[in-house]
Amino acid sequence: MAEQNTRAAFEKVFRETVVPAIMEDVRATELAGNAVEWIEKAIVHNTIGGKYNRGMTVPDAYKVLKGLDKLSEEEYTRTAVLGWCIELLQSMFLVADDMMDSSITRRGHPCWYRMPGVGTIAINDSFIIESGIFIILRKFFRSSSFYVDLLDLFHEVKFQTELGQCLDLLTAPEDVINLSNFNFQKYYYIVRYKTAFYSFYLPVACALILAGIATEKTLQQAKDVLIPLGEYFQVQDDYLDCYGDPEFIGKIGTDIKDNKCGWLINKALEIVSPEQRKLLDENYGKKDDEAERKVKELYLELDIKGHYHRYEEESIKMIEGLIEKVDEATGMKREVLTGFLKKIAGRSK
Amino acid sequence: MAEQNTRAAFEKVFRETVVPAIMEDVRATELAGNAVEWIEKAIVHNTIGGKYNRGMTVPDAYKVLKGLDKLSEEEYTRTAVLGWCIELLQSMFLVADDMMDSSITRRGHPCWYRMPGVGTIAINDSFIIESGIFIILRKFFRSSSFYVDLLDLFHEVKFQTELGQCLDLLTAPEDVINLSNFNFQKYYYIVRYKTAFYSFYLPVACALILAGIATEKTLQQAKDVLIPLGEYFQVQDDYLDCYGDPEFIGKIGTDIKDNKCGWLINKALEIVSPEQRKLLDENYGKKDDEAERKVKELYLELDIKGHYHRYEEESIKMIEGLIEKVDEATGMKREVLTGFLKKIAGRSK
Ligand SMILES: [Mg+2]
Ligand SMILES: [Mg+2]
Ligand SMILES: [Mg+2]
Ligand SMILES: [Mg+2]
Ligand SMILES: [Mg+2]
Ligand SMILES: [Mg+2]
Repeated sequence: MAEQNTRAAFEKVFRETVVPAIMEDVRATELAGNAVEWIEKAIVHNTIGGKYNRGMTVPDAYKVLKGLDKLSEEEYTRTAVLGWCIELLQSMFLVADDMMDSSITRRGHPCWYRMPGVGTIAINDSFIIESGIFIILRKFFRSSSFYVDLLDLFHEVKFQTELGQCLDLLTAPEDVINLSNFNFQKYYYIVRYKTAFYSFYLPVACALILAGIATEKTLQQAKDVLIPLGEYFQVQDDYLDCYGDPEFIGKIGTDIKDNKCGWLINKALEIVSPEQRKLLDENYGKKDDEAERKVKELYLELDIKGHYHRYEEESIKMIEGLIEKVDEATGMKREVLTGFLKKIAGRSK
Repeated sequence: MAEQNTRAAFEKVFRETVVPAIMEDVRATELAGNAVEWIEKAIVHNTIGGKYNRGMTVPDAYKVLKGLDKLSEEEYTRTAVLGWCIELLQSMFLVADDMMDSSITRRGHPCWYRMPGVGTIAINDSFIIESGIFIILRKFFRSSSFYVDLLDLFHEVKFQTELGQCLDLLTAPEDVINLSNFNFQKYYYIVRYKTAFYSFYLPVACALILAGIATEKTLQQAKDVLIPLGEYFQVQDDYLDCYGDPEFIGKIGTDIKDNKCGWLINKALEIVSPEQRKLLDENYGKKDDEAERKVKELYLELDIKGHYHRYEEESIKMIEGLIEKVDEATGMKREVLTGFLKKIAGRSK
């Protein structure tokens, strides 16, 4: 059977259903034409072009939860539309994150705020993209009994993401390098709040709600597995930034130069001698090849790779254990969770 | 009888009820202490210090709609809490607006993004302030039958404000001066969407919902009067920027130098001769005293003041007419609307 939820099919829902639904509300206000075009461009430019892992999880997980082989056209659109709300949430955060990180490119294109004539207008554009979420929720789910649950969920996860972003920005400001700011407690908070809730928990929570089996119990089951899974995913991301094959991951890692509060530096800080710590203080976060080389050399000495592999092994075991314990009598399906783990475990990009 | 809804009483609700309710959710995540302090400061710094006209309208209008002499303590808190959601919405927009306008001060203090160590982190702070609205709505109104109506209302008005902001930013960008961008159609769109919906319609819509008499009919009655009233208010604001007494209005107007798409310049553009237009093209939007003087001289020649006074007279009459036509059988009270008009008509600051 041909795969139903392809990247192309998912993107088609965005272009033919999501964007027109938002733009209908924009046009209804009789906004001047150049501003209408601007808004459509801001939404499309910033939302198209990613991997859509988060958004595409909604139809996938829904299918498993409902025990279906294939979704009807209508069900596919409905679940994909909700998936796009997650992609819009991400889009809003990426527009803002790139400004706050002074980033240059995103997905191979200039960051939105760096496009000609955009600049700080991007702030208002990120607000508009967020509003798109609630326009879509209203148009497609206003009459559903779970409408208010969707609204609460998106508000909750948006807030969690902001809290993670806040701690990230305060822990590793662009201009102040101070490794004493870093520790694993902050690291895991940032990972959990900035990434795991919206990337891992939110798609499954959306599918649970749509499938009509969202209860305190099933949502908690999802959270209990998906937050640790999201942590593991981000630790991998940090590992691959340093040790991944640039040809595979599609970029050259810059976490050391960028003063990132990542897993590797936190592990190093945990086990360094005072002299090694001095080397880190002097070289971490510098936009300098030689300084980066010295940090990488120390990572070798400290066998950070070995520490990572032990962490990875334990994480996978731990998550498998968590999934095994999941009681399917609630309506939750282990398959939703194992699917995630399979995609992630041992990935090299 | 002592006035119940004073600025001090209203502010007390913020400090003792609103801020603690938001911070409770922040602390529950076990966020690091410095970030907790940061968030509280971001919320308080940006929300305290205004006139609170918008927020304080909620208890005032509610009292009138309910036909009460005085609100119970509980009712006052509840209505004031909802009023603070409007102030938070404004706060979120002001943080962003100041960044987009490169403003220096706000309410006599440095703008938030210009405070030491803040910078672009202010973008995420504005997101957090917005999330505060939905934390408050959830904590205080989740169990009310109208909870979902409040959510929809705040989403709708937030979006309208963003659309107004968008057109404003595109019509009068900081760095491109081009009077051909301006016209009254855009002007009134900006005023309506950027200001009138959240400042005039939203407080009364909130009061109608709380009072249990929000229907399509009453909300439309509110809109029909309050949007024109908001327009009139903004036209006054533009007039006072040029002709108000700086001692009274508390600041020296800068709209001409700032290339603002205001009422006066739009009126001038409507009636200038080609030579006068040339003078405007050469002098409007320049950060230059002499250029500003020339524009003001031309305004005198064109009798912009006289045009304004005719506009004002007609507006007041028109709005009085609209209020007179309001059918109180719906539950709407004319007094809610006349109260607004009285505060505004003929104001000199
Ligand atoms: Mg970034
Ligand atoms: Mg960042
Ligand atoms: Mg990374
Ligand atoms: Mg401004
Ligand atoms: Mg502005
Ligand atoms: Mg003004």
